[in-house]
Amino acid sequence: MGGDHVPQSPIAGVKSVLPLLGKDTRLTLVGPQDVIAAELAKQGLAAGQFDIAHANDVIGMDEHPAKAFMLKQNSSIAVGLTLVKEGNLDAFISAGNTGAMLVASVLTLGNIEGVQRPLLGALYPYKGQYSLLADVGLNSDCKPEQLAQFGHIGSIFMQAVWKVTKPRVALLNIGEEKSKGNQLAQQTYPLLAANDKINFIGNAEGRDFNKGHADVYVCDGFVGNIVLKLVESFYPLLKEKAPNDKDVEAFNYEHVGGLPILGINGNVLIGHGSSGPLAFHNMVLRATEVVQSDLVGKIRRAFADSAAS
Amino acid sequence: MGGDHVPQSPIAGVKSVLPLLGKDTRLTLVGPQDVIAAELAKQGLAAGQFDIAHANDVIGMDEHPAKAFMLKQNSSIAVGLTLVKEGNLDAFISAGNTGAMLVASVLTLGNIEGVQRPLLGALYPYKGQYSLLADVGLNSDCKPEQLAQFGHIGSIFMQAVWKVTKPRVALLNIGEEKSKGNQLAQQTYPLLAANDKINFIGNAEGRDFNKGHADVYVCDGFVGNIVLKLVESFYPLLKEKAPNDKDVEAFNYEHVGGLPILGINGNVLIGHGSSGPLAFHNMVLRATEVVQSDLVGKIRRAFADSAAS
Repeated sequence: MGGDHVPQSPIAGVKSVLPLLGKDTRLTLVGPQDVIAAELAKQGLAAGQFDIAHANDVIGMDEHPAKAFMLKQNSSIAVGLTLVKEGNLDAFISAGNTGAMLVASVLTLGNIEGVQRPLLGALYPYKGQYSLLADVGLNSDCKPEQLAQFGHIGSIFMQAVWKVTKPRVALLNIGEEKSKGNQLAQQTYPLLAANDKINFIGNAEGRDFNKGHADVYVCDGFVGNIVLKLVESFYPLLKEKAPNDKDVEAFNYEHVGGLPILGINGNVLIGHGSSGPLAFHNMVLRATEVVQSDLVGKIRRAFADSAAS
Repeated sequence: MGGDHVPQSPIAGVKSVLPLLGKDTRLTLVGPQDVIAAELAKQGLAAGQFDIAHANDVIGMDEHPAKAFMLKQNSSIAVGLTLVKEGNLDAFISAGNTGAMLVASVLTLGNIEGVQRPLLGALYPYKGQYSLLADVGLNSDCKPEQLAQFGHIGSIFMQAVWKVTKPRVALLNIGEEKSKGNQLAQQTYPLLAANDKINFIGNAEGRDFNKGHADVYVCDGFVGNIVLKLVESFYPLLKEKAPNDKDVEAFNYEHVGGLPILGINGNVLIGHGSSGPLAFHNMVLRATEVVQSDLVGKIRRAFADSAAS
């Protein structure tokens, strides 16, 4: 029930992605049972192909995130995340109230041991590849140690899920030299440089995203969120000038689908409120990739090792 | 002598802009006299139309800003700024080493009384208009009071130079509500809201630049510099898809020319290192506009009033 166009868009996305899923993948639809059943019938889908997890509350797009999550314990967000927590789902996706999804995911599933702060990642397109922007909004104020962890977690994500052999990790900054930047960047640089588990390539600047300079760009959620929304706003501009262009289409977030929350005990992807069927289609694919990659297990082992060493 | 293509580009820019300047405007060329004289001759310009201020040192684009400025007291940057300080020039423009220009401008000319921190502004295009991004790199770490002053100074700039009647001032943030953002944004919001000298319209997000949401976007120089370089990197992408398009061409920094340093006792504009003739042409125009608007006088009076009230 999350998003501006429900239940039509999620069900339409499910319908188109279904033939692409392996036999071992089964989808659970979370929301009011009658609404889901009616929409499945309307779109000509047999209800038996899915599990339905009934949730009669809906958190509105404009509700206060934490408050709504606390009060509406039978919302689709709460029900879905509880199924993940209890091991009954491998991943949960939603295009619902972003703030509520973030708060609820972190509170319900908790941080992976050793992870100081979970983060929200976003994928930046470049010539058919993607790089990760970490964080884009979970942490507005960060400590250097937390930013350095974003680099490590992001590197594991790009390696596990996107099969990048030796992800290039860069610190988003305002100059090339290591002495550049605000205090946070200056203090984060040596921590990233000292981490021999990652391939740190130094600073990246605002112009480097469109050059494919790195595989992971580390920044706090304040900077990352501004970058993400700014970049998204270039898509309609580009599309107006060059419709049907492949490079331009890459900036359409619907091809990515959703943003992963990284560093929590479970797989959660958050979609844009305005997600259409294509976005839901791709969010399901992203979720299966994250599950199959055993991303959570890999982050757990990496941080257990770090703690031990 | 500042920039990657000297002395050809600045002299070519001067040549093309000369017919557009009023009789009261006279240009002084700062640099090695023989180099300037030779280039003027080469481009068919009569030397008598200009004043030449001899400066035999050149600060390289890769030199350490503060160190180079201190050691090379006869650099074109030092000579030009001294002429401004002594009242012999109304404005100084350069596409030289940005760091050196910033350091040298602030040290030589000093802050306007009451201004805590000068800032570097950048102009963001939207449908034939411009808005100001303040700061884009002079202050990586800011206090709320400083950011709030950027809003006030930026508002005076847009009113004086760009003739915007009641500039809409927004705080660059990651959400619409006033409680949003990092600590800096949360603490800056009420200061901007309390300033009755400006038309504060609340928060702006990364997506709002391309909607023409505000006339002044307030941010620290770290965020602003990343935004500026990211936006600049979309110009070649857009141009590739739509050459000769007016909206796209607006993203070419050469049409703006240079960025103003605001809040110091004098008019200084900084150009891109790669500035071509068009950029120098427009930098000269921007400089004349800033001088004619009496921007420095207006900021002085506004901050004298603020101190008095």
